Amino acid sequence: MELGLVGLGKMGGNMRERIRRAGHTVVGYDRNPDVADVDSLKALVDTLAAPRVVWVMVPAGAATASTIDELADLLSPGDVVVDGGNSRWTDDIAHGKKLGEKGIGFVDCGVSGGVWGLQNGYALMCGGAEADVAKVQPVFDALKPEGDFGFVHAGKIGAGHFAKMVHNGIEYAMMQAFAEGWELLEASDEVTDVREVFRSWQEGTVIKSWLLDLAVRALDDDEHLDKLKGYAQDSGEGRWTVEAAIDLAVPLPAITASLFARFASRQDDSPSMKMVAALRNQFGGHAVESK
Amino acid sequence: MELGLVGLGKMGGNMRERIRRAGHTVVGYDRNPDVADVDSLKALVDTLAAPRVVWVMVPAGAATASTIDELADLLSPGDVVVDGGNSRWTDDIAHGKKLGEKGIGFVDCGVSGGVWGLQNGYALMCGGAEADVAKVQPVFDALKPEGDFGFVHAGKIGAGHFAKMVHNGIEYAMMQAFAEGWELLEASDEVTDVREVFRSWQEGTVIKSWLLDLAVRALDDDEHLDKLKGYAQDSGEGRWTVEAAIDLAVPLPAITASLFARFASRQDDSPSMKMVAALRNQFGGHAVESK
Amino acid sequence: MELGLVGLGKMGGNMRERIRRAGHTVVGYDRNPDVADVDSLKALVDTLAAPRVVWVMVPAGAATASTIDELADLLSPGDVVVDGGNSRWTDDIAHGKKLGEKGIGFVDCGVSGGVWGLQNGYALMCGGAEADVAKVQPVFDALKPEGDFGFVHAGKIGAGHFAKMVHNGIEYAMMQAFAEGWELLEASDEVTDVREVFRSWQEGTVIKSWLLDLAVRALDDDEHLDKLKGYAQDSGEGRWTVEAAIDLAVPLPAITASLFARFASRQDDSPSMKMVAALRNQFGGHAVESK
Amino acid sequence: MELGLVGLGKMGGNMRERIRRAGHTVVGYDRNPDVADVDSLKALVDTLAAPRVVWVMVPAGAATASTIDELADLLSPGDVVVDGGNSRWTDDIAHGKKLGEKGIGFVDCGVSGGVWGLQNGYALMCGGAEADVAKVQPVFDALKPEGDFGFVHAGKIGAGHFAKMVHNGIEYAMMQAFAEGWELLEASDEVTDVREVFRSWQEGTVIKSWLLDLAVRALDDDEHLDKLKGYAQDSGEGRWTVEAAIDLAVPLPAITASLFARFASRQDDSPSMKMVAALRNQFGGHAVESK
Repeated sequence: MELGLVGLGKMGGNMRERIRRAGHTVVGYDRNPDVADVDSLKALVDTLAAPRVVWVMVPAGAATASTIDELADLLSPGDVVVDGGNSRWTDDIAHGKKLGEKGIGFVDCGVSGGVWGLQNGYALMCGGAEADVAKVQPVFDALKPEGDFGFVHAGKIGAGHFAKMVHNGIEYAMMQAFAEGWELLEASDEVTDVREVFRSWQEGTVIKSWLLDLAVRALDDDEHLDKLKGYAQDSGEGRWTVEAAIDLAVPLPAITASLFARFASRQDDSPSMKMVAALRNQFGGHAVESK
Repeated sequence: MELGLVGLGKMGGNMRERIRRAGHTVVGYDRNPDVADVDSLKALVDTLAAPRVVWVMVPAGAATASTIDELADLLSPGDVVVDGGNSRWTDDIAHGKKLGEKGIGFVDCGVSGGVWGLQNGYALMCGGAEADVAKVQPVFDALKPEGDFGFVHAGKIGAGHFAKMVHNGIEYAMMQAFAEGWELLEASDEVTDVREVFRSWQEGTVIKSWLLDLAVRALDDDEHLDKLKGYAQDSGEGRWTVEAAIDLAVPLPAITASLFARFASRQDDSPSMKMVAALRNQFGGHAVESK
Repeated sequence: MELGLVGLGKMGGNMRERIRRAGHTVVGYDRNPDVADVDSLKALVDTLAAPRVVWVMVPAGAATASTIDELADLLSPGDVVVDGGNSRWTDDIAHGKKLGEKGIGFVDCGVSGGVWGLQNGYALMCGGAEADVAKVQPVFDALKPEGDFGFVHAGKIGAGHFAKMVHNGIEYAMMQAFAEGWELLEASDEVTDVREVFRSWQEGTVIKSWLLDLAVRALDDDEHLDKLKGYAQDSGEGRWTVEAAIDLAVPLPAITASLFARFASRQDDSPSMKMVAALRNQFGGHAVESK
Repeated sequence: MELGLVGLGKMGGNMRERIRRAGHTVVGYDRNPDVADVDSLKALVDTLAAPRVVWVMVPAGAATASTIDELADLLSPGDVVVDGGNSRWTDDIAHGKKLGEKGIGFVDCGVSGGVWGLQNGYALMCGGAEADVAKVQPVFDALKPEGDFGFVHAGKIGAGHFAKMVHNGIEYAMMQAFAEGWELLEASDEVTDVREVFRSWQEGTVIKSWLLDLAVRALDDDEHLDKLKGYAQDSGEGRWTVEAAIDLAVPLPAITASLFARFASRQDDSPSMKMVAALRNQFGGHAVESK
């Protein structure tokens, strides 16, 4: 089939390649003319035969919103827009409504895979009407990994990004689990070769997982991670997961602890611990460490 | 080689079978005469030719301690005792000392694998002197999974159970991660088929793992887990992990949250929440739910 | 001075009484004619001489928004509206803008005090322009407790409710602190009279506080809180506190733990713990408690 | 009455002064001859008339244990030893047993008050037999604050230190509550004078407390706590509180979060966050901050 693809960065570029390898036609547009197949969104739309499928793969937020706005003006009833970026699921509702008013379908699609996706395939979680999803299915089939898994139509518009958001929340806590275990092993005098312990866990254990494999790779590069700072960004989905949980009154202690550990990792000094130190000083004459 | 195996419950019985399949001789003793090969620990020791290896696979705590005490009297210098049970690593130090005073070697070995071990092999984490571990190595090789992983000599006496303990701590937080994510998806109106979302994650995602596969199996049995109560035991290692972290001043928020969630799951009613309700009632005239 | 007061429920009614005791004139409006001084918002506005101060004390959300909308139409430039309800601080920005466009001032005011406020005074945290706050100051002075404390002009519009929100977040964690300590004492065999321990802490300790006094009162009514269920509502501010922290990347582990404990207290059964039980069952043949 | 007091550091010295002000005779011993009234434990015991009361106020652990050992040899049946130090309650059991075998009574006493105790009195939580506590009561009455509160006989031997331990656990979470709230206010753009907000809360609020008063004092010294590092020690009781909770399967999320925040505050760099950064780097090509 024919696909319009907007956004040809690292992720979008690799996805174009994987879709083409599956025998489909991809017309790509990007603000960077060096990687684009056409020189405007309009040219992209004009190149495609109706009914069109246009996949948006640009940064979440303003860039995605303005791209969808433009497409709402350019596309025709019966066309379908896919948002494959890291949009918040609540944005999908608004985007779907705007496009729906013009008779254009909308499918939101959470995409997992990172730098490994081109080779191994991308896990896809999508939301939208059955008929709209069906129009995109050949592209989903091209992008997903071999085998029975890696694609799900999770529900109505927003469900794809919601599912991807929760995936990332789980990922936060799994990473934190390995991180805490590793820190404890490194701190102990008992275990003399922590890396080999991690390596051994890759088979026969309850915790065998791709993240564990990656941890072993990282330790093979740098046994005690001496080259890294204990500084971790968060990318939005972790925050949204906790916010969704708060809205639904769902307790999420491990995922939230993982998010807060990242927040704390980015502080040069902890304001709250200054207050604790100040209080200890006030009531107890406890020694505090002054600057 | 020849191995004495004490304790032929579900776990020990399967291990005997796997070791025998690898061509070794196993003399098993258990209090239950129906499963035992010999009728006493003494008979077991007498049957084996020195230098002997005796693997203890009985409940941690008093049962393991008394078995090791008896073996200290029955065995000879140069023999080796392996504790493959779920002992606390701090107990290993005492057991190793007692046996060492008689010239008997000691190896502690954390064993992971559960009901899947007979078929897939057991992950083994052991601690002890190089020479003692070497005497047991053929048995370790028989028990471990195929391939490069699943066995590690983690350090001195205690290191094996320490590593296994941390493995279980990580396992707690990973289980909690999937559990929280599942609860959030089930609570949302967006995602209409939570089980299919979990199923799809088995390929192409960052969170693909054996635990995820097991979650899908569980959901295939009982889509919304309606047959289960939200009640989870803990088996010791989670508590010991947190206690080791406290000793070493290592923050372990996600693993500890996972442990506390299990504690709370076993309370019919939460005493602390009674106090919160009482306080709200005192200061605010907030409605509280009385019995 | 003269004040219009909209909303004469438990809180508003007591506040009218306290302001009148200080010698001010209060014209109160409520949908319930039995407690109202006038029969409409318009009558209330007409009764007051310009420049007017109208204090809105109705439920946060839709009721507050519609009252402010009506007042925007009824009031004149130079008048001031105070929102003393439990509004989210982000709503204040919108309300202030709408009133400001008509030349009407706006002050948001977080009010603490509950059923004790009539007698002891209300703690007030307000936000808004200096000139607008000044117009309300005699009422603030009437409402606040005796002495040097209990009133603050915290910053621009929204700052009052923001400060009140954080107050409540702190309150959540303080309540949780006493609740956890009480549960631990009740669970131990060592301490035989937990209530007397709590009582004794009211003097000479680091934790002496009004909440502790209230805990002792509650225990005097019901020594082991047997009459209560461990079920605690949350009223919005706790959630907003955590959401504000997430927006600002501030780690808030104790306050969030307190919020999640309340969420969990309201679940008949924990879905996440069902999943943990299911996973334990899958990998270990661990006994799970079935319904 | 007559009291022997062992340990005349900052705490013990002030306590001697307060007891003397109440009209009692105190014979003090300390390794430092400049502050001691007698030059040996033996001299202290010889100076007192039987039945004696000897209060031990030395560092918990080895120093307390060896002092109690010595006193067990020096004292006579009917005498009473009080341990007023920060001993772990589990040590009390052993100390009481050792003294009891010689007919010497034992009372454990948790003491709160810090540098404020001389002036305001010390909160006392004690454990032991009724008859032994009665022998010490005049000293307890001298040390405790004026009024109805500040002293409790909490139960059998160990109950005093157990109650004090829980007091400190509660204190950890209360300090963390104020610290988190303060950090959030400081991080926000809304509230322009955080110190004045804290000051205002001292009357009319739910969170009014001595710790809040101390926070205001600290902020008056150093408005943004710029002179302090976000570095907080922990003194044992917090750890023991969490360990006791783990033994009793009591969930303690807020207190534990407070303890872990202190652990984290003392790390130059977080090992667990290095692992999180390493994993992010492996799967996503996410930018990590290298040293």
